[in-house]
Amino acid sequence: MGRWEPNARERLARAALDLFGERGYEQTTVAEIARRAGLTERTYFRHYADKREVLFGGSAVLGHVFAKAVAEAPPSAAPIDMVAAGLEAVAAVFPERETSRQRQSVVGSHPELQERELIKLAALSAAVTEALRVRGVPDPGAALAAEAGIAVFKVGYERWIAPGEHRQLADLLSESLTELKAVTAGG
Amino acid sequence: MGRWEPNARERLARAALDLFGERGYEQTTVAEIARRAGLTERTYFRHYADKREVLFGGSAVLGHVFAKAVAEAPPSAAPIDMVAAGLEAVAAVFPERETSRQRQSVVGSHPELQERELIKLAALSAAVTEALRVRGVPDPGAALAAEAGIAVFKVGYERWIAPGEHRQLADLLSESLTELKAVTAGG
Repeated sequence: MGRWEPNARERLARAALDLFGERGYEQTTVAEIARRAGLTERTYFRHYADKREVLFGGSAVLGHVFAKAVAEAPPSAAPIDMVAAGLEAVAAVFPERETSRQRQSVVGSHPELQERELIKLAALSAAVTEALRVRGVPDPGAALAAEAGIAVFKVGYERWIAPGEHRQLADLLSESLTELKAVTAGG
Repeated sequence: MGRWEPNARERLARAALDLFGERGYEQTTVAEIARRAGLTERTYFRHYADKREVLFGGSAVLGHVFAKAVAEAPPSAAPIDMVAAGLEAVAAVFPERETSRQRQSVVGSHPELQERELIKLAALSAAVTEALRVRGVPDPGAALAAEAGIAVFKVGYERWIAPGEHRQLADLLSESLTELKAVTAGG
């Protein structure tokens, strides 16, 4: 096989989720993930640094999408509206709910995966803070608005993947942002 | 030596910070920390599960103090005022600024310590969420108010330990909370 594998990242991520679900996370090797995806182990490591990382391939994308939306918000937008634009953009590129649920059931039951999830969220928060600074939002407002956005994302995302939930991610994020505003206003 | 060592936890934490500063974190062993504190390795492991944990001994205390303040806030308090009471209580029991700066310079330069820091903050957020629920704050408001409180804590704490900063932690937390309110209000 040549160096170019169409959709290799996505195929590996899909194969990994399926295998983690079938056999368990610990019991699955990188070699098995590559084989299931019809790819080699070498190709796997061209895309992901280790076994954990295949579950976090989307997080860099989220950071870019969020930061880009902040960068492109109207000049008159308040910091929290820039954050709202970022959340909306993130919701638009998110994988399907069932995929996210599968992923969450693996991450949620392994402390070392939860650790990496927290690190990715911290990196997302730093990227959003930086994007807000570039838009001229002064510290500490930039960091606070970014952290508020990540809090809304976490809470909205958890609601979205909860059993029986049918509302869309964009709606739940927007609703959670409204709730955060009400809560911080003392309402 | 008997089982009871006065202030063993604090002595170990102090010895660890001093040694990490003098020799570096990697170069310091648990045996050396215990020796510097005038205690045995066995005593060390009665208090801390591993070498990392000696840097996080205060985090359970913070959780208790924060949750207790939430529990004891006046019945009429809004969720964000309960969180403000928690932040105030936390500021009152915090170690000295210079100790926190020493600690931060170790934690900030070691990814595995930053990971554990993120985990402790997530646990703190969960404890505050639970305390707010007990006070009758419904979801997702409880989680959002707690996350907002942790965001304020992180930002205020970073400002407090910044070089040249002289204001008190309580003032910086209170100011950061005011800024968060302004930012989320769209100001």
